[in-house]
Amino acid sequence: MTRHIVRDRARKLLEPVVGLLASAGVPPLLVSLAGLALSLYGAAAVAGGALALGAVLLLLAGLCDVLDGDLARRRGLAGPFGAFIDSTLDRVTEFAYFGGIILYLVNRPAGFRDYDVAVALLALAGSVLTSYARARAEGLGLHCKVGMMERPERIALLVLGLLFGYHVLVVVLTVMAAITMLTFVQRVVHVRRLSQADYTPTDS
Amino acid sequence: MTRHIVRDRARKLLEPVVGLLASAGVPPLLVSLAGLALSLYGAAAVAGGALALGAVLLLLAGLCDVLDGDLARRRGLAGPFGAFIDSTLDRVTEFAYFGGIILYLVNRPAGFRDYDVAVALLALAGSVLTSYARARAEGLGLHCKVGMMERPERIALLVLGLLFGYHVLVVVLTVMAAITMLTFVQRVVHVRRLSQADYTPTDS
Repeated sequence: MTRHIVRDRARKLLEPVVGLLASAGVPPLLVSLAGLALSLYGAAAVAGGALALGAVLLLLAGLCDVLDGDLARRRGLAGPFGAFIDSTLDRVTEFAYFGGIILYLVNRPAGFRDYDVAVALLALAGSVLTSYARARAEGLGLHCKVGMMERPERIALLVLGLLFGYHVLVVVLTVMAAITMLTFVQRVVHVRRLSQADYTPTDS
Repeated sequence: MTRHIVRDRARKLLEPVVGLLASAGVPPLLVSLAGLALSLYGAAAVAGGALALGAVLLLLAGLCDVLDGDLARRRGLAGPFGAFIDSTLDRVTEFAYFGGIILYLVNRPAGFRDYDVAVALLALAGSVLTSYARARAEGLGLHCKVGMMERPERIALLVLGLLFGYHVLVVVLTVMAAITMLTFVQRVVHVRRLSQADYTPTDS
């Protein structure tokens, strides 16, 4: 699987930074919150039409997201709350960014507004539903990590779309909507298969 | 807690229908999928400006959502996949409805479009994040059912907003955005408290 290329590359690049933060005693939660702040500001920039600034801020926020987990592991602080807040803030970031993109698309004078907004909503729904399906399956004790497009790939695509402007952005959103929705359906089918293997229904 | 008033009342009203469906051998998944179809059509109606039709369809979809779980229990078919698909389709429905509302708000000639769209996005984010936080916490083995506004209350509020038209709808969305975001923060704080009770960090 080529799934972790983006995350693994970022991780290797950031190794010295993790060492620096660890020896300075920086709490991982502070890095997570810095990432959240960068995302919220980036989303506001995108909403206001400053797409390139938004792309840079999203990229920096994505780096914080890799940093906080590695820092927690390095400092021996990795625990259930860290795992919880890390993925929860990831979802907050996704809502913020897609929200910013939708507000940008709504206010563009030209363009196919209904299509643009619908496809941005679908990409948002697909991204969040993919993560929700996994979290819900794990809550029921089922493993669920199948799928083609994880968060680092989604961020890389969005950054590209923001850098190249409106038309590329809408193409990127269309691709994301299709792939994330497919991944979501894949996960639902996967959970169905897993739970049928474990349980025999009383009839049918 | 008054939290389950809406769901309990619906459940009592629907008891004879559950009996009927059970004796006819209707599979619970079929009821869930009927609910999904009603929601998608309702969302399209709202997007096209037919708010009252959308309200009726959302209400019917909400009833399907109470029915499917009760039917599964009655028929002895309640299992992990049922629990999984039930909450996952709830999220799909939420995305569909808020998506329909956002498309409706975008295309309204008058109104404060930026405010309207932003508050609808916040209500969507608050609703889904509240559910995500719970699912993620349960995936980590932590119990997380605190909060003021569960799904039946959210549906009841949305139906009201849709029935009374644009201005009431925007007020309802504003209230939902505030309450669901507060519930989300409540859950994050709750999980933090729970995980600190269970684990003693190595430093600090």
